[in-house]
Amino acid sequence: MGFIVEGDYSDDDVVLEPPPNFSMVEEGIYRSSFPRPSNFAFLQTLNLRSIIYLCPEPYPEENLDFLRSQNIRLFQFGIEGKTEPSLVTLRDAIRGALKILMDVRNHPILIHCKRGKHRTGSLVGCFRKVQSWCLSAVFEEYQHFAGIKSRSNDLRFIETFDTVCLRQCLHSIIYQYQGYGSKKRRLLYEEESVQKPQITSI
Amino acid sequence: MGFIVEGDYSDDDVVLEPPPNFSMVEEGIYRSSFPRPSNFAFLQTLNLRSIIYLCPEPYPEENLDFLRSQNIRLFQFGIEGKTEPSLVTLRDAIRGALKILMDVRNHPILIHCKRGKHRTGSLVGCFRKVQSWCLSAVFEEYQHFAGIKSRSNDLRFIETFDTVCLRQCLHSIIYQYQGYGSKKRRLLYEEESVQKPQITSI
Repeated sequence: MGFIVEGDYSDDDVVLEPPPNFSMVEEGIYRSSFPRPSNFAFLQTLNLRSIIYLCPEPYPEENLDFLRSQNIRLFQFGIEGKTEPSLVTLRDAIRGALKILMDVRNHPILIHCKRGKHRTGSLVGCFRKVQSWCLSAVFEEYQHFAGIKSRSNDLRFIETFDTVCLRQCLHSIIYQYQGYGSKKRRLLYEEESVQKPQITSI
Repeated sequence: MGFIVEGDYSDDDVVLEPPPNFSMVEEGIYRSSFPRPSNFAFLQTLNLRSIIYLCPEPYPEENLDFLRSQNIRLFQFGIEGKTEPSLVTLRDAIRGALKILMDVRNHPILIHCKRGKHRTGSLVGCFRKVQSWCLSAVFEEYQHFAGIKSRSNDLRFIETFDTVCLRQCLHSIIYQYQGYGSKKRRLLYEEESVQKPQITSI
């Protein structure tokens, strides 16, 4: 015998229900569809610090209660799901969401919209571009989650999204996230007067 | 200005090419299809310590060279892809692979077969059962990667895979992986004479 295990064996029989379209994007970053109360036990295991919510509809009271009980901060960027948002509106929302997403002080963080396909897929796609992923891999990942609901508008948005500009913004406020473990993501505090992001207080 | 960033900005223009069907499964665990030389630059960013390879075919020389240069250990569990393997063979291979997969000393680790759909999907599916995921979420994840190539045999194998037995084995040699961050995965060394897994030395 080599190891013994410390842990609580009493809940071996608990079955955890991740929200549909749940996945890990990166260390400390998750994506999913809209979490329902049956998913709360699973979400608790993620130890979330923040949620990025990409719909304009108000957050349901039972979800707000869960967030309060877990001390999770909600960042809402309302992107219309049915009517096509203007390019400028969409770009500004995605840029704002990326700044929150890439700030490790907000991790672990969950991104979600309604189905975890289009709005969430667009944000993750732009994030992959910042990570220097080739476009074919970015699109493949988008399509894994969107399936037959894949939208060419989203793919075009991701393709044309300007990460150079975003990187320049990020240099001054957060950190540059360049790939995985090999590039250390070190934050050096220079001064504490960081510009606060717009948040939906709960 | 709040932060300054430490990092190498010289390679902003490098485009990284993850292997098709690449994804992060868990902290320190990745999955993909068979990596080609064009994917090596991307794989380097993962700082891999090990690879689980699920096909019976020998590993190509150029991939072995890459593993040697990166000091990555290869664990091969040969599962036939075309002819249906016997249930006992498949179960033994998946059990063996799970023991390697769940040993944090082997992390970061990449699982791959040929297309990253069936063999890799079966292994990840069984891993999710050990993590107490509900079966519908396990199947959804399998289907994300298998797409129209989804095989009902794989789903049945995952459903009937006995994690209780596996947990009992793991208690004695590794650790019990129960969900995410909230459950600490602590290893207590009792004695050093750990039974060595079968590995393909490179």
